[in-house]
Amino acid sequence: MSSLDALPIRDDLRGKSPYGAPQKVVPVALNVNENTHPIPEDVARDIVTSLAHAVLQANRYPDREFTDLRQSLAGYLGHGLTADHIWAANGSNEVLQQVLQAFGGPGRSLLGFTPTYSMYPLLASGTGTRWIGAERDADYEISPETAAAAVRREHPDIVFLCSPNNPTGTPLSLETIEAVYDATDGIIVVDEAYFEFAPSGTPSALTLLEGRDRLLVSRTMSKAFAFAGVRVGYLAAAPAVTDALRLVRLPYHLSALTQAAATAALAHSGEMLAMVDDIKAQRDRISVGLAALGYRPYRSHSNFVLFGGVDDPNALFEALLERGVLIRDIGLPGQMRVSAGTEAETTAFLDAIAAVSSKA
Amino acid sequence: MSSLDALPIRDDLRGKSPYGAPQKVVPVALNVNENTHPIPEDVARDIVTSLAHAVLQANRYPDREFTDLRQSLAGYLGHGLTADHIWAANGSNEVLQQVLQAFGGPGRSLLGFTPTYSMYPLLASGTGTRWIGAERDADYEISPETAAAAVRREHPDIVFLCSPNNPTGTPLSLETIEAVYDATDGIIVVDEAYFEFAPSGTPSALTLLEGRDRLLVSRTMSKAFAFAGVRVGYLAAAPAVTDALRLVRLPYHLSALTQAAATAALAHSGEMLAMVDDIKAQRDRISVGLAALGYRPYRSHSNFVLFGGVDDPNALFEALLERGVLIRDIGLPGQMRVSAGTEAETTAFLDAIAAVSSKA
Repeated sequence: MSSLDALPIRDDLRGKSPYGAPQKVVPVALNVNENTHPIPEDVARDIVTSLAHAVLQANRYPDREFTDLRQSLAGYLGHGLTADHIWAANGSNEVLQQVLQAFGGPGRSLLGFTPTYSMYPLLASGTGTRWIGAERDADYEISPETAAAAVRREHPDIVFLCSPNNPTGTPLSLETIEAVYDATDGIIVVDEAYFEFAPSGTPSALTLLEGRDRLLVSRTMSKAFAFAGVRVGYLAAAPAVTDALRLVRLPYHLSALTQAAATAALAHSGEMLAMVDDIKAQRDRISVGLAALGYRPYRSHSNFVLFGGVDDPNALFEALLERGVLIRDIGLPGQMRVSAGTEAETTAFLDAIAAVSSKA
Repeated sequence: MSSLDALPIRDDLRGKSPYGAPQKVVPVALNVNENTHPIPEDVARDIVTSLAHAVLQANRYPDREFTDLRQSLAGYLGHGLTADHIWAANGSNEVLQQVLQAFGGPGRSLLGFTPTYSMYPLLASGTGTRWIGAERDADYEISPETAAAAVRREHPDIVFLCSPNNPTGTPLSLETIEAVYDATDGIIVVDEAYFEFAPSGTPSALTLLEGRDRLLVSRTMSKAFAFAGVRVGYLAAAPAVTDALRLVRLPYHLSALTQAAATAALAHSGEMLAMVDDIKAQRDRISVGLAALGYRPYRSHSNFVLFGGVDDPNALFEALLERGVLIRDIGLPGQMRVSAGTEAETTAFLDAIAAVSSKA
């Protein structure tokens, strides 16, 4: 059997390993920030009905413009957005990859504030875009001054701002976003994958879109809509931005099944988002519980909590796994990340970590 | 409203238009080589049942390794292939894009024999790979000598061989594939998107895989499986090739819905392929009918026919469209392409072209 090394792969790929957290089957999986609540049964029924219609026409290519889905996404986001402002793809990873294909690539650069979503540098590398990691302030926050200074210094073509940030959960102020926008002529993407988990009343970067044609706000249905398995990411921006993305997308990139399922789920956004409130309550329970055990949870606006004060992340990972609870060692010294689950799953995590924790 | 030109898009994208045939609603659409037969109702029922199960777990990320689907595809292809030899993505366009990301890119080149599938140069451009168009012999055929000479002259890193070729329908011999393989140290992809429509007994390039680690054979479920709307392309190759593709794929690129629908359809491959025989009969009817009208159909092993002898392709396009029949002007002087439809659709096309044809 041949080995990978014997094949003429690109030099920059030699010796690399594929991205991905382990997909283990465990009773309580809180490692990849999924929404652990299944889709409510009545919503699932409507989705399946839509899928059944789509299957009967699946011999034909799907609507290349996914018009119904764009209209539904615009309606969900509000803020006066229309279908012309909306783009979607197979997960926000693909949306971001298309942004890099249109505005990045060889000779261009992408800046992000580390630690941040680990796919950003991989997407940069996959599109030949140079990755620039800039530093955050204390506690992973980013002030307008820190952000603008980094952008003025590095002159990136694109800036990705993850808000709230993964893996730290840290919120980002609109002032910081505005400061970055004003400090560059490049493209700014605010990645709001976890935005629905912010405290109610937190303003979205969507409120900044008007008059800012280089600002893109990306979202995903994976988290708030419990749709990780369906792979729907999207963004809102000036119509010219979506025209640019049409130049790099593969034709018919969104299947008829994806379009049907997502459109049906968006018709139930109220019910889907009701789960979000429950998850936010569990996240806050985790923060309180971890602090009581002597750990140091960071401020989180997302559906997960990063916490410090872990003497040996690998040992804690294994001890929890032995008790059927899977969390994530994201490679930050002394820190680990846990997703908020259902009430029962969250209890299982808190009980397990209390049991194995010398700090209790 | 901003215009595209005001945005900092890549220079090589400026002034370009998005790929895509018009998506018109007409009674008889024979322009994009779809399988115009809907999925049989009992198969559709099984697919919907699988989708219903998938929706109930859609809050979780899909199986990143799409193991069940790879096993089903290996079983369908036969030739002793196992899941380790199989890769899949959202349409064969994405499969081919991943091949270019792994083995092409800046500083590397892709060779194809024109006219061929119009996405090849676009995929090259989108990945920064240099495109080399080489010439075919008379009647769009490619002899082993012609193919090997072009590859020795141009030294491409990758060769795409479309077999049968789109948009010409032309078959390709195994001898030509072997000659290309022996003439290069690069990657050879045989794109068998339309292979199931070849006369029964025609050998697939799959028979050449054993001992040829740089040979990749790609397929799609869009055509023979009437699955254009579901977007499933795949390939068979040495396991090391699939390992290389794991380095460039976006994590979780295949949705749980795609995996469920495709796996369910493959369990009915016998029934799905029964439609293929009907389509082959309609294709042959088109060739005979067009010849009788004085046109010059090319030899076709696919579900469409390219025909010459058209004085004014645009006029014929419009005259047929007026009669509710949509075919494709693929930009070859004096030639047009028509997909084989159902018996009724094929009759509608043949009647319409006879009515508008001065050659009759």
